[in-house]
Amino acid sequence: MERNICVCLEFLTDEHRRTIEEAAREAGFSVRFFTDEDEARGFLPQCEVLYAHSAELLRAAPRTLNWYCCAWAGVDPYCRNDGIFANPDCLLSNSSGAYGITIAEHILMVLLMLLRRMPEYEAVVRERGWRSDLPVRSILGSHITVLGAGNIGSTFAQRAKALGAARITGISRSGKARDAVYDEMFPIDRLDEVLPRTEILVMALPGTAETQKVLSRERIALLPENAVIVNVGRGTALDQEALSQALNAGRLAGAALDVVVPEPLPADHFLWETRNLILTPHVAGNMTLDYTCDLNVRMFCEDLKNYAAGRPLRHLVDRSRGY
Amino acid sequence: MERNICVCLEFLTDEHRRTIEEAAREAGFSVRFFTDEDEARGFLPQCEVLYAHSAELLRAAPRTLNWYCCAWAGVDPYCRNDGIFANPDCLLSNSSGAYGITIAEHILMVLLMLLRRMPEYEAVVRERGWRSDLPVRSILGSHITVLGAGNIGSTFAQRAKALGAARITGISRSGKARDAVYDEMFPIDRLDEVLPRTEILVMALPGTAETQKVLSRERIALLPENAVIVNVGRGTALDQEALSQALNAGRLAGAALDVVVPEPLPADHFLWETRNLILTPHVAGNMTLDYTCDLNVRMFCEDLKNYAAGRPLRHLVDRSRGY
Repeated sequence: MERNICVCLEFLTDEHRRTIEEAAREAGFSVRFFTDEDEARGFLPQCEVLYAHSAELLRAAPRTLNWYCCAWAGVDPYCRNDGIFANPDCLLSNSSGAYGITIAEHILMVLLMLLRRMPEYEAVVRERGWRSDLPVRSILGSHITVLGAGNIGSTFAQRAKALGAARITGISRSGKARDAVYDEMFPIDRLDEVLPRTEILVMALPGTAETQKVLSRERIALLPENAVIVNVGRGTALDQEALSQALNAGRLAGAALDVVVPEPLPADHFLWETRNLILTPHVAGNMTLDYTCDLNVRMFCEDLKNYAAGRPLRHLVDRSRGY
Repeated sequence: MERNICVCLEFLTDEHRRTIEEAAREAGFSVRFFTDEDEARGFLPQCEVLYAHSAELLRAAPRTLNWYCCAWAGVDPYCRNDGIFANPDCLLSNSSGAYGITIAEHILMVLLMLLRRMPEYEAVVRERGWRSDLPVRSILGSHITVLGAGNIGSTFAQRAKALGAARITGISRSGKARDAVYDEMFPIDRLDEVLPRTEILVMALPGTAETQKVLSRERIALLPENAVIVNVGRGTALDQEALSQALNAGRLAGAALDVVVPEPLPADHFLWETRNLILTPHVAGNMTLDYTCDLNVRMFCEDLKNYAAGRPLRHLVDRSRGY
């Protein structure tokens, strides 16, 4: 019987398709490409592997599906045990690793905008005004905490180190780092010790039950008044109301959120009007950067080799853990 | 006779004043501090050294002034041979070197904003809209040309290298670099060869007769359509009208100008309305960053030692060259 792969992605170039076809052939698979989910659905009953980023499509796959490779890094919609997998033993892998570069550059951009008062200068320029006296700050010499020391957090940490950050503290579940870039590592249950000496808090956590509002109202209150927060992981990881109140009251210097709850944000939501807050519509990891797309495809092809050879997938997700 | 130093600066802390007083005492000088130019003027006739950033104050100094240390990096107002120095042999030094960090971070910020379409996303967010599909680009793998390979240009180049730029080309008058960070160096008369393969052009030139409109209409036309330009040196270094036309016609992807002609920009100037242009009111090197102020003072104190010992000043400006 023919072994089939269904690929339903909108970002693939002809070269990407050739790369995937070649990897499939070598692994003993046939592959078909779709950009339309309805068309892809018809092919699913014959498929063993699905490479896509659609909960709808996954939900439509029969028990014969054995591996779902998600093209996103965040896989929270697939880890809720709500029967989204017809086959309970279906493997789930993600594309964590493909987004480090683009999201790290986003973090750097919004962080510098916060430290250098760019939204205020932009408002001056919109009014055709001229002033240059707002006090700016630097990454050089700063104390940074990276909450979520995975690929995204560590790619940013490397850049912050090159820019002269004085101390970069990594926080992960275990307190162990996969990357030597951190000056110190702490497990997440010691976060409260670290927050009072954090000037820049970068959050790059997956959306799991454990990360739900991990930056609570009480923890926001532990940050010093000059602290800025950047969140690029999941909006669920912080208490949005407490953050908004702290920003409006001047108890925090600023924040930049690329992820919020809910998305899109309703027109009457309080975050739109929050002071010193840079909002972006979940753009940090968008799939328009060639590098991200190339790496995404390369990672799938690597794991296809592993899958065909019966080896463990390199990007396998632990569905009970959520990442 | 007592040897006097007049310091007229608004950014000094008490600790800075103590540092300067100690350096003065060791060098055999007395020092007085002012923030008001009118008050400083009365002390000038007794002074051998002036540390300030004021053409007015310098113009008021008699022939007995022997060294003017400018707290800015750009000294174009003092190099015009218009009799601003009563003493034609008066030494001129600048504070080039103090601004590299803060201006490099400004360049990085506006460059990422251009590559990641941030002004467009900000417009979406101002309307409370939600979209994330604008194609972004990365510093990773990019071809960067740094026009003006001095302290500011090179401090930025180091950061761009750490972010994975594929090739960084430095351009200086001589084609020689003071810094090994460049992948290649060219003299300015070979700029035309480099422009067609430049994706990111960073300009950090001093304002001299030679740099006047060095980025001319013809040279702007040599850049590829996806090129972005960042200018943090002097507004005189580029043809503003040609730049505006190229941006409005989509013949360039974007630009960020922190320096313009004239400053402040009049309310009816065409640059306010230019497409894909990030304007900032000459803020990149502003004196609110502690690091910049500390280094500024330290550099003056070092050169005061040199001056007192009859050694050449480390930060001496060649008035005929203009930097």
